[in-house]
Amino acid sequence: MNRFLLLLVLFSFLSFNSRAQDKDSIVIKSFFDEALTNGDAYPILRHLCKEIGHRLSGSENAEKAVQYTFDKMKELGFDTVFLQEVRVPKWERGKPEKCVLTKSKKFAQKTLNVTALGNSVGTGNKGLKANIVEVTNFEEMEKWGRDSLEGKIVFYNIPMNPTYISTGRAYGEAARQRYSGPSEASKYGAIATVNRSLTLLIDDNPHTGSTGYKLNLPKIPGFAVSTKDAEELSRLLKDEPEIEMYLESTCGIVDTVISHNVIGEIRGSEFPDEYIIVGGHLDSWDLAEGAQDDGAGSAQSIDALALYLKLGIKPRHSLRTVMFMNEENGLAGGKKYAELSGLYREKHVAALESDGGGGRPLGFGCTGTDEEVASFMSFKKYFEPYDIFEFRSGGGGADIGPLKAQGVPLIGISPNSQRYFDYHHSKLDVFETINRRELHLGSAALASMIYLIDQRGL
Amino acid sequence: MNRFLLLLVLFSFLSFNSRAQDKDSIVIKSFFDEALTNGDAYPILRHLCKEIGHRLSGSENAEKAVQYTFDKMKELGFDTVFLQEVRVPKWERGKPEKCVLTKSKKFAQKTLNVTALGNSVGTGNKGLKANIVEVTNFEEMEKWGRDSLEGKIVFYNIPMNPTYISTGRAYGEAARQRYSGPSEASKYGAIATVNRSLTLLIDDNPHTGSTGYKLNLPKIPGFAVSTKDAEELSRLLKDEPEIEMYLESTCGIVDTVISHNVIGEIRGSEFPDEYIIVGGHLDSWDLAEGAQDDGAGSAQSIDALALYLKLGIKPRHSLRTVMFMNEENGLAGGKKYAELSGLYREKHVAALESDGGGGRPLGFGCTGTDEEVASFMSFKKYFEPYDIFEFRSGGGGADIGPLKAQGVPLIGISPNSQRYFDYHHSKLDVFETINRRELHLGSAALASMIYLIDQRGL
Repeated sequence: MNRFLLLLVLFSFLSFNSRAQDKDSIVIKSFFDEALTNGDAYPILRHLCKEIGHRLSGSENAEKAVQYTFDKMKELGFDTVFLQEVRVPKWERGKPEKCVLTKSKKFAQKTLNVTALGNSVGTGNKGLKANIVEVTNFEEMEKWGRDSLEGKIVFYNIPMNPTYISTGRAYGEAARQRYSGPSEASKYGAIATVNRSLTLLIDDNPHTGSTGYKLNLPKIPGFAVSTKDAEELSRLLKDEPEIEMYLESTCGIVDTVISHNVIGEIRGSEFPDEYIIVGGHLDSWDLAEGAQDDGAGSAQSIDALALYLKLGIKPRHSLRTVMFMNEENGLAGGKKYAELSGLYREKHVAALESDGGGGRPLGFGCTGTDEEVASFMSFKKYFEPYDIFEFRSGGGGADIGPLKAQGVPLIGISPNSQRYFDYHHSKLDVFETINRRELHLGSAALASMIYLIDQRGL
Repeated sequence: MNRFLLLLVLFSFLSFNSRAQDKDSIVIKSFFDEALTNGDAYPILRHLCKEIGHRLSGSENAEKAVQYTFDKMKELGFDTVFLQEVRVPKWERGKPEKCVLTKSKKFAQKTLNVTALGNSVGTGNKGLKANIVEVTNFEEMEKWGRDSLEGKIVFYNIPMNPTYISTGRAYGEAARQRYSGPSEASKYGAIATVNRSLTLLIDDNPHTGSTGYKLNLPKIPGFAVSTKDAEELSRLLKDEPEIEMYLESTCGIVDTVISHNVIGEIRGSEFPDEYIIVGGHLDSWDLAEGAQDDGAGSAQSIDALALYLKLGIKPRHSLRTVMFMNEENGLAGGKKYAELSGLYREKHVAALESDGGGGRPLGFGCTGTDEEVASFMSFKKYFEPYDIFEFRSGGGGADIGPLKAQGVPLIGISPNSQRYFDYHHSKLDVFETINRRELHLGSAALASMIYLIDQRGL
């Protein structure tokens, strides 16, 4: 507080014309100074990862995270903290999965590193065994057709494109094999699928993530195999196409349960009924701690508004931090938030999301009208002193996506994505991959973007 | 090679006017594509770190690195690979250092985590013991004066400023306590110094780095203490200023020996006697593997020119990769390269260096005439598709610095610096901190900058 007042005193000596801009620059600098010195995101993230652990929707851990972030926002002095009830699927992994190759002339059996896909049905305790058909794109599968695929295990081996600078773009293109793979293969009578893990590393860690079953098609079990084993399997199949694969999983959706979005609010001084929100998703996959996905974004979203409280900066509009539940396998939290916003006719000036990991922020993307995007672009100059240069049209986040139908402009922060998919949805997604300064630069960048929107609109 | 030819065929269909710029963009894309798919920097760095290890000037390991990079550049097909003899100091650490607090009313003794500073003299086997005077800036030391400091151990406790976005700037300001600390304290009769480690983490790892003794002043031993212990020591001294510290080190410069710069050259087609060079330094401190400092820059410098060889791109000027020796404690390699360049009247169009770690490249800095900097700035647009936005006046590198006197424009690449000083000069500087894609984005960025200078001059 003292530092902020001192800055305002210094500011009063500036020439009249440059005051508005300079005042904004001074406030923004105070966000960055405070975040880099005393940011809260890092300790909050440590608690989420190390005291709680994974936060799979419907799990006991997810409820602990709801309680913890509720208490934390109360403790930080948010004006109001409340919960929104959300019905989420409770998917359980069951026993460790098995994937074993047999019927080779070269080895008795070989075990591959696999994980069940989230939301997948299991094979049951007896497992299943079949020949394997490797597919490197979806057109190829059409050519194979039912005659070749019926009763088989489809092995999708579609690597992420390493030449894209945005690893998110590479992920987006390759993710079809996971999200739609099982249903697409079941059209042709396949009995299970194994897809190449969605990572640019070649290593032993399988990466989970949700699969979506189409209505009216048989639900077949989906697995992901580590990239190293995918390449090995591809080599083996070239030599011996007749080898068999045994797959076993006991996963499945066991229930639908009540969980919650957690919302902390700072009341606006001029427009208390108009909202700017910033959020991440509190749920994660169960293989690790969900540090990058999306403990980081959750912690930054609390921290961004905590900076207002600590610096004594009063917003004109009401600001909300939203901890969304169930982004990973249902998006129930994002949908519920938008449903209630529509029901109560809440006006949202803008919705921000951080769900690209805790890496150094490089920029933002905005989805909105041409005018809104132009206003957004005009803020770029305020971020350049912090080496944040990428302002793009397009972007947002899965959880805030449902607000688009209400005409709310969506803004996503873009952290350095180079390492993100190394960890994403695998056992490598742990707290130790996060750098304190990089995380807190993200908190400050979010606080600054909110501030500019609060002062100037979009 | 095939991919590059294909790109050139595609290029021939473009409109005439946009050809020069589009051709350059196509070549630059080919550098990035090749580096992200098949870059050599990562395996080279792995060898330097895991097969060789630290590469302290004058050590057997440093000579192994000379031999390895010489052989590697031969193997990669550089037109010429040669050595430049460099005389380097051979500083040895000796036995593990000791730092023990005694004469407290609260504890019998307490051990602190310290490292000897590079180039420091040792205390000898008997060690030394004295009271401690904490100093938080250099003006303060002047105020204390000889009466208070004579016979004492000066404890410099000057943190790096966490609010600077460039951690390099924070390092630059705080590094005086290490580089000049021992000599400045010896002016007042102090018998040793301990400085706060130069890192923004609060942890147990001491960070070494060279100290420079002034002529005509007594050489007193210099140590660095971990940041956590620095904070603890500061707290203890407030309570009990009379506690004593025992320090022991057996380090020292034991010899001057012959080592080498390693230079690989690709002959220019139009201006074979004019050079563009890119380098890093092969030597490192001895506490870890020198992965970030500066195995990364060394490996990228080889990789940047290897991209020309692999893609069949013929430069107009001669290109050189230079593995500089002895940046850390003498700069003998950088000085020798410039001395010979002057002696042979070699014309250098530009000198590039990578010595900021293997993080994601964010930009470049250039030191040169106004015209040269303006040309450099005009290249910015070619890098924006790769999220490289920061083009700054000023920058270069320690090893290429001595070429400035010959009027050579200097360019340094600027990787993301947020994590760099976490590792720098400590036992944390290992291969595992490097991400393959981030490293290879750096190789491609260097190759691209060289290409634009080769085609258009500066």
